[in-house]
Amino acid sequence: MSQVHQNVQRDASLVTTAGTVRVWGEHHTTGVCSSLSLTHHVSETWELPEETHTGENSFRAAAEIVGSLKRYATQGARKATESPRVCGPVCQCVTLSLCCLQREALSMMDQVCHWVRVDPAGLGRPHLPGAPDTSSLAVPMMLLCLVQQLEEGVSEREQRYREVGDWSVRKILQHLKRDGTAVLETVSSEGNELPGSQGRLMNPGHALEAGWFLLRWAEATGSQELMATALEGFLVRPFRTGWDQQHGGLFSFLDVDGLPPTQLEWDMKLWWPHTEALVALLLGYKQSRDPQLLDFFRQVFDYSFSHFPDQEHGEWYGYLNRRGEVTHSFKGGPFKGCFHLPRSLYLCETTLDSLLAESSMS
Amino acid sequence: MSQVHQNVQRDASLVTTAGTVRVWGEHHTTGVCSSLSLTHHVSETWELPEETHTGENSFRAAAEIVGSLKRYATQGARKATESPRVCGPVCQCVTLSLCCLQREALSMMDQVCHWVRVDPAGLGRPHLPGAPDTSSLAVPMMLLCLVQQLEEGVSEREQRYREVGDWSVRKILQHLKRDGTAVLETVSSEGNELPGSQGRLMNPGHALEAGWFLLRWAEATGSQELMATALEGFLVRPFRTGWDQQHGGLFSFLDVDGLPPTQLEWDMKLWWPHTEALVALLLGYKQSRDPQLLDFFRQVFDYSFSHFPDQEHGEWYGYLNRRGEVTHSFKGGPFKGCFHLPRSLYLCETTLDSLLAESSMS
Repeated sequence: MSQVHQNVQRDASLVTTAGTVRVWGEHHTTGVCSSLSLTHHVSETWELPEETHTGENSFRAAAEIVGSLKRYATQGARKATESPRVCGPVCQCVTLSLCCLQREALSMMDQVCHWVRVDPAGLGRPHLPGAPDTSSLAVPMMLLCLVQQLEEGVSEREQRYREVGDWSVRKILQHLKRDGTAVLETVSSEGNELPGSQGRLMNPGHALEAGWFLLRWAEATGSQELMATALEGFLVRPFRTGWDQQHGGLFSFLDVDGLPPTQLEWDMKLWWPHTEALVALLLGYKQSRDPQLLDFFRQVFDYSFSHFPDQEHGEWYGYLNRRGEVTHSFKGGPFKGCFHLPRSLYLCETTLDSLLAESSMS
Repeated sequence: MSQVHQNVQRDASLVTTAGTVRVWGEHHTTGVCSSLSLTHHVSETWELPEETHTGENSFRAAAEIVGSLKRYATQGARKATESPRVCGPVCQCVTLSLCCLQREALSMMDQVCHWVRVDPAGLGRPHLPGAPDTSSLAVPMMLLCLVQQLEEGVSEREQRYREVGDWSVRKILQHLKRDGTAVLETVSSEGNELPGSQGRLMNPGHALEAGWFLLRWAEATGSQELMATALEGFLVRPFRTGWDQQHGGLFSFLDVDGLPPTQLEWDMKLWWPHTEALVALLLGYKQSRDPQLLDFFRQVFDYSFSHFPDQEHGEWYGYLNRRGEVTHSFKGGPFKGCFHLPRSLYLCETTLDSLLAESSMS
């Protein structure tokens, strides 16, 4: 897996000024690109408050990295390249998500769909003979996100990506198992439960994130059935299951049968499930007006804003232990980039604005 | 990375009786093989106490897995195969360590040395163009372990593997940096410090484990200089640095400059660094008679035996949080196999026997 060997420290400084940057895994590639895409909106409509520090520096760094990444995107292979403006050699895994750049995304989307739906070999993850075909929730979830990002505000693209979006939605829904009571992170390619701890794994943050992608798709396509499924199966139940009743916050991983997940960080509280929960629960409330979703939003908001922000240097810490104590003070690392937090803050603010506007009109 | 998708639960039961087992990474391959090798000694000299539960079942399962693994070892590639007696398809990463089986090891050792010293491509870890050449402490450390395992009790092999052993020792010593005050987990292939968090990473458990391999090599070759380096550089300093002064126990990872490591589990207390520390500190005491090493041994012993054993079902838990609370109740998982604990108990007992025998003779 990819690793960032150079971190953005607590005060936003880089630890080394010249060295090796090994960036970014698929999360970051999605994140950087989505964030860059978001900056178009943000820069027009929203001034990032100074104390969040999420903005300019991160986006500028991201822009420089993406500039070197995108040269390799169409090659569909792991490459290393020089990015002198980002302090040295950049070794990246070009993965399915590197397609969100507004201008160059369209030609890359075909390649991404090929990787996801036909042959993933180009991603450098050969299928091991004898291993079962599996479906990871992350893949159709991210693909749906890309479809929505590419379609946004460009009506002529809606038809072009409708089929891909529908396919992604079907694949996501295959992860809703046990009579709709649990979203399992990994299922067989036919959507059946897998045996063992892999098959029992739940990732509440992913379920909630997938949930708001589904809500947007349901709204765009006018599907009440999908909306109901998203609300109950991907928001309400994963939130109830994923919340730590003892110490608060969302667990990183859980086992559907109550066994310990094998992931060492299963009980840690990470920033991104909370940012995704904020978006999902607020959007869920906006679409359903179910007051329990607003209560859940408040619960996540209270926990998040009392635990994650760095009161001295701004931005959010990324990693807390189960008790909510900060375990990692850096602001940027292998998986913590300039993605989840600004997206969440931006989308929550626009959703709240919309709710307030409705309320003042009524 | 490899994952075990089927776990040995707290009471030694397997969760699924038929399913997918995705085993084992290099740790496990070393572990299983070394453990099997150890059983020859154990079965002759030492009855595993019933309450540890480490023994028969684990070894039998290991034997079955190794039986299917070894068929692929010489192919030098990642493969998946069927191991019906271990409940389903086994997908393993055949890596450099699969060479310890007493009977078949010798022909495989040449292949392992080729992977380590000439071309690692067969391990399925292609070198990314542009990425720096690095040396991971784990590699020469495990190779030295293999050399010692193959030589043990077979004098004619000593000459055959002496050069490989010397090479491994030189590579290990390249990780002792900053005037001998720190063992860095990853350095350049020339032994220079790497920039960024990768270059700053310390793994106290690995340093201590490498330490006792070095002590044995120093004893076998009669090198006082190597013994002194191993004692101070790989035992005393890593122990002092790695010990959590606040909650006790050895940290999993540390950053040499005091920054937070990027590993999410950095502050967790894992079983294996403690088992390796027990072996290292006791062997260090036996060879040096430095009383501080016996104090350190006692300190690790007290922490380990008051935190890791499962008083009800036997065996050790593998994973505690920083405060020493059990976070994962399973006994077998992706990295916890039948390796570190029985090896440590066996070697500590034989070392203590030897010390007591000497003491009664004097």
